[in-house]
Amino acid sequence: MEKSYYLDNASATRLDEAVLEAMMPYFFKTYSVATSEFGYSSGVEARDAMEEARGKLAAFMGADQKEFIFTSGSTESSNLALKGVAKALGEKKGKHLIVSKIEDFPVLYSARTLEKEGFTVDYLDVDEDGFVNLDTLRELITDETILVSIQHGNQEIGTIQDIKAIATLCHEKGVLFHTDATHTFARVPLDVSEIPVDLVTVSAHTIHGPKGIGGLYIRNKTHIAKIMDGGFQEFDLRGGMDNIPGAVGFAKAIELVTPEENLHLKEMRDKIIELVFEKIPHVKLNGHPTKRTPQNANISFSYVEGESVTLHLDMYGIAVSTGSACFSRSLEASHVIMRIGGDHERAHGSIRMTIGRFNTIDEIIFVVETLTKVVAALREFSSLGKE
Amino acid sequence: MEKSYYLDNASATRLDEAVLEAMMPYFFKTYSVATSEFGYSSGVEARDAMEEARGKLAAFMGADQKEFIFTSGSTESSNLALKGVAKALGEKKGKHLIVSKIEDFPVLYSARTLEKEGFTVDYLDVDEDGFVNLDTLRELITDETILVSIQHGNQEIGTIQDIKAIATLCHEKGVLFHTDATHTFARVPLDVSEIPVDLVTVSAHTIHGPKGIGGLYIRNKTHIAKIMDGGFQEFDLRGGMDNIPGAVGFAKAIELVTPEENLHLKEMRDKIIELVFEKIPHVKLNGHPTKRTPQNANISFSYVEGESVTLHLDMYGIAVSTGSACFSRSLEASHVIMRIGGDHERAHGSIRMTIGRFNTIDEIIFVVETLTKVVAALREFSSLGKE
Repeated sequence: MEKSYYLDNASATRLDEAVLEAMMPYFFKTYSVATSEFGYSSGVEARDAMEEARGKLAAFMGADQKEFIFTSGSTESSNLALKGVAKALGEKKGKHLIVSKIEDFPVLYSARTLEKEGFTVDYLDVDEDGFVNLDTLRELITDETILVSIQHGNQEIGTIQDIKAIATLCHEKGVLFHTDATHTFARVPLDVSEIPVDLVTVSAHTIHGPKGIGGLYIRNKTHIAKIMDGGFQEFDLRGGMDNIPGAVGFAKAIELVTPEENLHLKEMRDKIIELVFEKIPHVKLNGHPTKRTPQNANISFSYVEGESVTLHLDMYGIAVSTGSACFSRSLEASHVIMRIGGDHERAHGSIRMTIGRFNTIDEIIFVVETLTKVVAALREFSSLGKE
Repeated sequence: MEKSYYLDNASATRLDEAVLEAMMPYFFKTYSVATSEFGYSSGVEARDAMEEARGKLAAFMGADQKEFIFTSGSTESSNLALKGVAKALGEKKGKHLIVSKIEDFPVLYSARTLEKEGFTVDYLDVDEDGFVNLDTLRELITDETILVSIQHGNQEIGTIQDIKAIATLCHEKGVLFHTDATHTFARVPLDVSEIPVDLVTVSAHTIHGPKGIGGLYIRNKTHIAKIMDGGFQEFDLRGGMDNIPGAVGFAKAIELVTPEENLHLKEMRDKIIELVFEKIPHVKLNGHPTKRTPQNANISFSYVEGESVTLHLDMYGIAVSTGSACFSRSLEASHVIMRIGGDHERAHGSIRMTIGRFNTIDEIIFVVETLTKVVAALREFSSLGKE
């Protein structure tokens, strides 16, 4: 294939060359174990690099350096947030949690696991744009509630929740609040000194950083227990060999994101939506039109299967996603689109385009032109389109 | 510092340039999500790369491709082995586990966590070389025993257990057997088609592979439950974004290890031991002299503190380790050396040298020469040496 146009859910996982460059010294030169600080200077250098990376990431979100731990990625971060709080507070305070119905799998399935272990979970409905209702949330919180987990931006439809209002409500009620910010970190502002959130899941792989590294912001004095046993790394909250290149790469990835870039992503996102609505009939935008992550466009095309669209686009070298983030492999309908009032047809006809740093407006135009042809051809042959 | 001599516990974590080269296409070219196989060829390429890496690693240990899953590292692998089996069999079969007293922290502390959750754990003693006793193990196994976890090679003293005999015993008794092979994988043969072991923890970071990636061999039909909730990756045994560069790098790291290299490491190891015993009085080898990992030399020096030795060696650009693997930061005595009959003095006077691909015989000679001077000088000034 001569040229590829990546607008799939991996667009943002293309590593930035500058990130790799920042990681290089920690592959080949300063590769000591950061926690072996006694005894030799290379260990101290390694630890300093790790702590500098931690400090940059913490500062970026308005946190203190001691409030940010590295994990293997956002999946582990969310597992730790939910299960770690459950472990720390389950016996002490109560066994009730609240999550939204459109959370990504790490939160959703951690909640289900906790249910099997004797916890009670309320799954909060969302409206047609994907927003949770604050009054409903308020009613669900009881004295037994230990944690509310509602994502910042949705993984599929991009809708950005009003986490300031949610965090404030939880704070008033004395309940811990976790948000999965995997798809918003560095793209949508989140300052923990302004928003009383207690736990924030973040990842490097969504901002052209390395895979295999993520983080969890944990507000000072939050009750949480370790779930990965081993050494005493990460303030004794996560065992495992320090991934110094990963940590340094993550910090570099954050540095490379600029407000201008986020604005540019948003322009490309809006261009996709505008052109699709102009050129293709019978389409529906999934998620809120403006309160959405700058990199996400998710559109349902009536009378076609998303799988067929992606297969045909692939012949033109274009990669887009259908179904849910990490689970296109299953032909199950997206739980997110079903929950915002969609039916199976709308879920199966949905195409998600994720825009990254390496996409251009020209690509966007080519992709929509091709999409227009592909959808028209598929509708022509599809029995779904016939009246 | 002009030149550094790394013989610390990170020696093997220096990435091999060829590993990075193998990873490059998956940073910048084929970075799609491997599980999104439907719809576009880059996703299929990504998945193929992941599966090829899995196949190579599985084949290396005599396993089937479906019996090897990727994790974030050996810590997670061992957590999954112990907690996953406990979760799957605790209610069904029993709540008893057996581990050795000199296991590395992931196994040891996972066992302690399980104890807090209602499981019973027997901690098996070891002899002065670090070996478990088979008869004692046999006596400890009951109808309630669900898992025995005994490491292949020790993280500090290098002693290699007879895991074939242990696995055979467990097999006869119908008990699952897990071994932590973090420090032996590719260095000491372990073929799961010959040894009836059910679960094997491995990691890339001990063989010049990338950090943040490890694996767990899981024999077909082993009862084990997922502990990291999220997507349905890794045969639905571990949620989390596929780390394709990591997987590919891990497979490349395995390819680069040769029998000749292992022999050369062993020669360097024996050279260290030989020279130290020749030049420095009042020393004791920790671990078995021959049944030990090729890369490990651990020696206790009477009348000196390991911390002082490492600090002084550092002035010559030499990095070695003291104390336990990931925990030199604490001044606690090594639990391993205490368990093989050492006292606090022997534990605190221990120096561990780990030899990697990039060390040379000339370095070894320089290191021992320097060590000889440093130990002599420290003993001269130390009150410990004065009668």
